[in-house]
Amino acid sequence: MLYTRFNIQLTGLFVSKLRRIKVLLLLLFIPFIGKTQTPAYTAEDSIFIKGIFDYALTKAECYENLEYLCKKIGHRISGSPQAAKAVDYTYDLIQRTGFDSVFKQEVMVPHWVRGNVEDAWVLVDGKKVKANIKALGGSIATPKRGVVGQVVEVQNFEDLAKLGRAGVEGKIVFFNRPMLPTNINTFTSYGGCVDQRWAGPSEAAKYGAIATIVRSVTLAIDDYPHTGAMRYVDSLPKIPCAAISTKMANYISMQLKANKKVEFKMQMVCKTEDDVLSYNVVGQLMGKNKGNFIVCGGHLDSWDVGEGAHDDGAGCVQSIEALRILKNMGYKPNNNLRSIMYMNEENGLRGGKKYAELAVQNNENHLFAIESDEGGFTPRGFHIENNKPGIVEWIQKFKPLLAPYGLFNIEQGGGGADVSTLRPQGTVLMNYYPDSQRYFDYHHADSDTFDKVNKRELVLGAASIAALMYLLDKYYTE
Amino acid sequence: MLYTRFNIQLTGLFVSKLRRIKVLLLLLFIPFIGKTQTPAYTAEDSIFIKGIFDYALTKAECYENLEYLCKKIGHRISGSPQAAKAVDYTYDLIQRTGFDSVFKQEVMVPHWVRGNVEDAWVLVDGKKVKANIKALGGSIATPKRGVVGQVVEVQNFEDLAKLGRAGVEGKIVFFNRPMLPTNINTFTSYGGCVDQRWAGPSEAAKYGAIATIVRSVTLAIDDYPHTGAMRYVDSLPKIPCAAISTKMANYISMQLKANKKVEFKMQMVCKTEDDVLSYNVVGQLMGKNKGNFIVCGGHLDSWDVGEGAHDDGAGCVQSIEALRILKNMGYKPNNNLRSIMYMNEENGLRGGKKYAELAVQNNENHLFAIESDEGGFTPRGFHIENNKPGIVEWIQKFKPLLAPYGLFNIEQGGGGADVSTLRPQGTVLMNYYPDSQRYFDYHHADSDTFDKVNKRELVLGAASIAALMYLLDKYYTE
Repeated sequence: MLYTRFNIQLTGLFVSKLRRIKVLLLLLFIPFIGKTQTPAYTAEDSIFIKGIFDYALTKAECYENLEYLCKKIGHRISGSPQAAKAVDYTYDLIQRTGFDSVFKQEVMVPHWVRGNVEDAWVLVDGKKVKANIKALGGSIATPKRGVVGQVVEVQNFEDLAKLGRAGVEGKIVFFNRPMLPTNINTFTSYGGCVDQRWAGPSEAAKYGAIATIVRSVTLAIDDYPHTGAMRYVDSLPKIPCAAISTKMANYISMQLKANKKVEFKMQMVCKTEDDVLSYNVVGQLMGKNKGNFIVCGGHLDSWDVGEGAHDDGAGCVQSIEALRILKNMGYKPNNNLRSIMYMNEENGLRGGKKYAELAVQNNENHLFAIESDEGGFTPRGFHIENNKPGIVEWIQKFKPLLAPYGLFNIEQGGGGADVSTLRPQGTVLMNYYPDSQRYFDYHHADSDTFDKVNKRELVLGAASIAALMYLLDKYYTE
Repeated sequence: MLYTRFNIQLTGLFVSKLRRIKVLLLLLFIPFIGKTQTPAYTAEDSIFIKGIFDYALTKAECYENLEYLCKKIGHRISGSPQAAKAVDYTYDLIQRTGFDSVFKQEVMVPHWVRGNVEDAWVLVDGKKVKANIKALGGSIATPKRGVVGQVVEVQNFEDLAKLGRAGVEGKIVFFNRPMLPTNINTFTSYGGCVDQRWAGPSEAAKYGAIATIVRSVTLAIDDYPHTGAMRYVDSLPKIPCAAISTKMANYISMQLKANKKVEFKMQMVCKTEDDVLSYNVVGQLMGKNKGNFIVCGGHLDSWDVGEGAHDDGAGCVQSIEALRILKNMGYKPNNNLRSIMYMNEENGLRGGKKYAELAVQNNENHLFAIESDEGGFTPRGFHIENNKPGIVEWIQKFKPLLAPYGLFNIEQGGGGADVSTLRPQGTVLMNYYPDSQRYFDYHHADSDTFDKVNKRELVLGAASIAALMYLLDKYYTE
């Protein structure tokens, strides 16, 4: 019906300027017509989505669930007792919530342990100052008495190569390239910076470095070191590596610029232990189309710092809440809907890989997989991996239904890490996109705690995911 | 040029579906053509605006200025020594920033003083529990030994009228209508609730109440009482009035529902002293059109709680920053641009009124007045008072230039309180609209402190105002 009206209006387009303005305004509210002639949404959809948001803003329980996860369980790195508790807690929670089913998927996960010694000092012309560090996840320990070396600062791997073995051997390499502040989506800046943390230690080891320190990947200038994953190249020596705060990074850099002799000393006892049996937790609402799935999820593990509140307790409780809302509103899905608590996103992605492997084994056709792993902040939209012709445009046609809730950015972009494992089966990968200004202030740091999460912002995210799942489930046909 | 391309594309509209989709996509990025055929913006505008945001995200000083205002001066109610300090500070700041001019406007402001006694208890069946209160701004004191009375709960003035004198006389009226949680823009819910605080004391006094307590106008459930303005009706007895926290409101309401006898006791020494001489502070960049003005502003006074960080330190430092950015980018304005620190928005609007009075006296033609008084949160858009035919649509044509920065909500809506005083001269009134989810958590409470402000969110607001002022200044012709 909207389609017809659209043509009629266009015929009159050249009649008057006033009319043209009206048409332009109208066009903004007309759904895009994709290649597949799926029915346009109806006024009922608009009302149902208002219902989703009203329900969420008055009856959501995800904030309280997040409080439990953060305050009663705390941070929960893969293989830790807290991760096991988080599995039990979310399993029970989904069961109590009354989903059609809940189950666990066995997955062996790495078990890296920070240990109880993590000390560091910077020595400027012999003067000693304490430094906060966080070993990067996966780092080896230092020798028992620590490692001490002269600090050499680089911005990137090209700098490092220029210094070569002569400039690096026996020294501690300090990667200090800051996040670019000028991207509005801060994840773009993260992508442009994180190589120093991930690959820096082995790159430095190539030239004989004895350790690396890396400027925390955050836009905030403060005292928190932000940890994160790194990967050793097997053929190169393994050297200890840690993150330092942005304030400390600026301090060291300033001393070096003033031609001071800067040394760094660090002691860490971290180690990788044997793999541990852990689990993904999956909750499901049954649909009429037995073999088809639309899923949302977050990762249940966190780094062993803070409380894993925004990363990614938020995504977990939102994913449970999204299905809870649809269930409690009496929605009967066409496809099976799932909320997935992935294990081990941070340092292995083993849960994501296991989920995809089992999906293939069980002939589960995953149409859409939505990840929430960018924090519990106010809604901005969804990013869509453009792996099916016309799919971005097809989803964009729902924009007028989503924009009233701040979801304007319905656009092409990367899906998340966990859902990426479903790429080979052609699943459309999506990322819930909340406002990103504050995310990296807390990311992988002791400051990622429950008090940094605003209840309404968190709840609006859950409602956003519920609204999208509803539309995808109702209208998508292959 | 864009205009021509628009017609050509439309001619081909019925050729193919693919083409149609392209045209629709294109239309989204074409400026609206308003009634006045002002020139469409150019690619240079897009680059200039990117420059504004880049500059702000790398070189803005408003966050540091806000820190000074919050931490070195603190809360600054009209007439207080801190308000005087804030006048001096912002005057000097604008002067140091190198605006073309800075001046003060004398204005007599009310001087309400909370005093050093503010205690309260709730008594449930004789059991005494301490209650946090904040006297409403303008309230009289209680008798020295306090006021004690039975609590009677109402949701609104209709409830109160039904109870009548028989149900209210000699009692303490408890206004407990909560903010509606289901509006996405929380200011809508504020508007639906604040009458209890503003007019409640006199309404209750009509029926012989001896005091009122009001549920804090916030969506957060916590222990902070949120103060705010009230107005006594001259013909009615004045009774003391205070805000209680939402947690306390829920507690009292629960006790009343359980048919417990609830009494409240409060002691307050607040009083209104003689008016005090104070000032608006105005900074200016000179334009070519001597008589025309485009202004932005926030209010320099705050309530005497917290640090007045979001309300409205943020709006003040953003207004200064917006002009600082344009100046430092070498922009030569057509019209005079001003950033205005209004005095006494919270309890009198005397600064806003004085500003408008002087504008008329001095024959200053104010084209646009933008207010920032909804907190230093991430940008969402601007609200425009629809007082000139076609003006909303004319501004909306800039949407494609603003949307990349999250400014999607360019729409009709109310201007702010301070700029409303310019309405009689036909000024287009606008409100900077940041995300509103967190605002009322801190509004008028001890929790409105500097640490609640995120640097990037604050800075993006300043850049948003600068970008809009640039476009209005460059393209508006009467």
